[in-house]
Amino acid sequence: MSSQGILTIVSGFSGVGKGTLMKCLLSEYPSEYCLSISATTRAPRAGETDGVNYFFVTREQFETMIREDKLIEYARYVDHYYGTPKDFVVEKLSQGINVILEIEMQGALKMKQKYPESLLIFVVPPKASDLEERLVGRGTEPPEVIKNRLRRAAQEAVYMKDYDYIVVNDEVERATRQIHEIITNERDRVLRRDDFIEKLTQELQIYSQQELK
Amino acid sequence: MSSQGILTIVSGFSGVGKGTLMKCLLSEYPSEYCLSISATTRAPRAGETDGVNYFFVTREQFETMIREDKLIEYARYVDHYYGTPKDFVVEKLSQGINVILEIEMQGALKMKQKYPESLLIFVVPPKASDLEERLVGRGTEPPEVIKNRLRRAAQEAVYMKDYDYIVVNDEVERATRQIHEIITNERDRVLRRDDFIEKLTQELQIYSQQELK
Repeated sequence: MSSQGILTIVSGFSGVGKGTLMKCLLSEYPSEYCLSISATTRAPRAGETDGVNYFFVTREQFETMIREDKLIEYARYVDHYYGTPKDFVVEKLSQGINVILEIEMQGALKMKQKYPESLLIFVVPPKASDLEERLVGRGTEPPEVIKNRLRRAAQEAVYMKDYDYIVVNDEVERATRQIHEIITNERDRVLRRDDFIEKLTQELQIYSQQELK
Repeated sequence: MSSQGILTIVSGFSGVGKGTLMKCLLSEYPSEYCLSISATTRAPRAGETDGVNYFFVTREQFETMIREDKLIEYARYVDHYYGTPKDFVVEKLSQGINVILEIEMQGALKMKQKYPESLLIFVVPPKASDLEERLVGRGTEPPEVIKNRLRRAAQEAVYMKDYDYIVVNDEVERATRQIHEIITNERDRVLRRDDFIEKLTQELQIYSQQELK
């Protein structure tokens, strides 16, 4: 029934499990979703690949993309630029495929202002202690780093109220299914059904004037 | 996870099948939904029962209810008053049960202005010709009456853009399931998760200040 895909931004505190949910969503519903790959000026970390995790570009290249309006949105985060290349997104949406952006909160809010029809989903832990346990349980970071992540989460919590939906990552399959249902249902929001509404309205006007069969 | 029920208004053109969808919804998910019974000053039709289809009241009784603020909303439609008694709705919502109102479009829009957290769903036929076929197929109304209903539908079509969701009644079970999913997902909209957001934010602040276990 619906035609265009929906641009959905998924954000959440570091460690909450966004990456896992996105992998699960893409593998459960491969024909309906794709992940947008951001451009960034930061250096790749161990294990990251250009064109897979990010498009890794120089600052000059990024600034050229800005000037040539090739980015849907961009922001500075810590010391680097991050942005969403436009062509890929526009093409996929027009094919009826939902595009997921995993971007940080500044960029998400800018996106929503510019494109009110985009959808903002904030992934949260069931409770704060779960987040701490998950970060501690990884065993890869010292206590001070974990404490900083929790502090940053406490600061980022103010953004929750500007998002559209809260999804609690209590269990991966349930949360993934919920994200899928949210996006699927959102396609029937009136603001995305303009064409259908106009067509039905015109048909009704024609029918109400014709002689009946 | 969510606590309060959602107040949902379901509207649609005469003959589109709202009644059937609501019966199906209530029988599929009896513990999650209830139907609000409107008060009206119009006379009961053959087969209607007081307290089941409507609360049939006199004009004086209705005006008393207005004065005593016992109605969530009310409107005049054709020659009579129609309104939604408040106590029942408030009680059910606080028990976490979603309340469905089947009211006409004037009342629906007034409700949305007064209670922005309420949800407006507009049920439509897949195409205008389906509506005509359904009305003709009933065999209970003469062509002129059917033509008037189609004309009224053409006029009412302007209200669609003020609703939140369009649900196409192509097949009863599918449309019912969609309505259920829309309402269920809407419970996770940020505007309805204030308490959870506040609690999580406070917990994060506490955790980020504590020593780690």
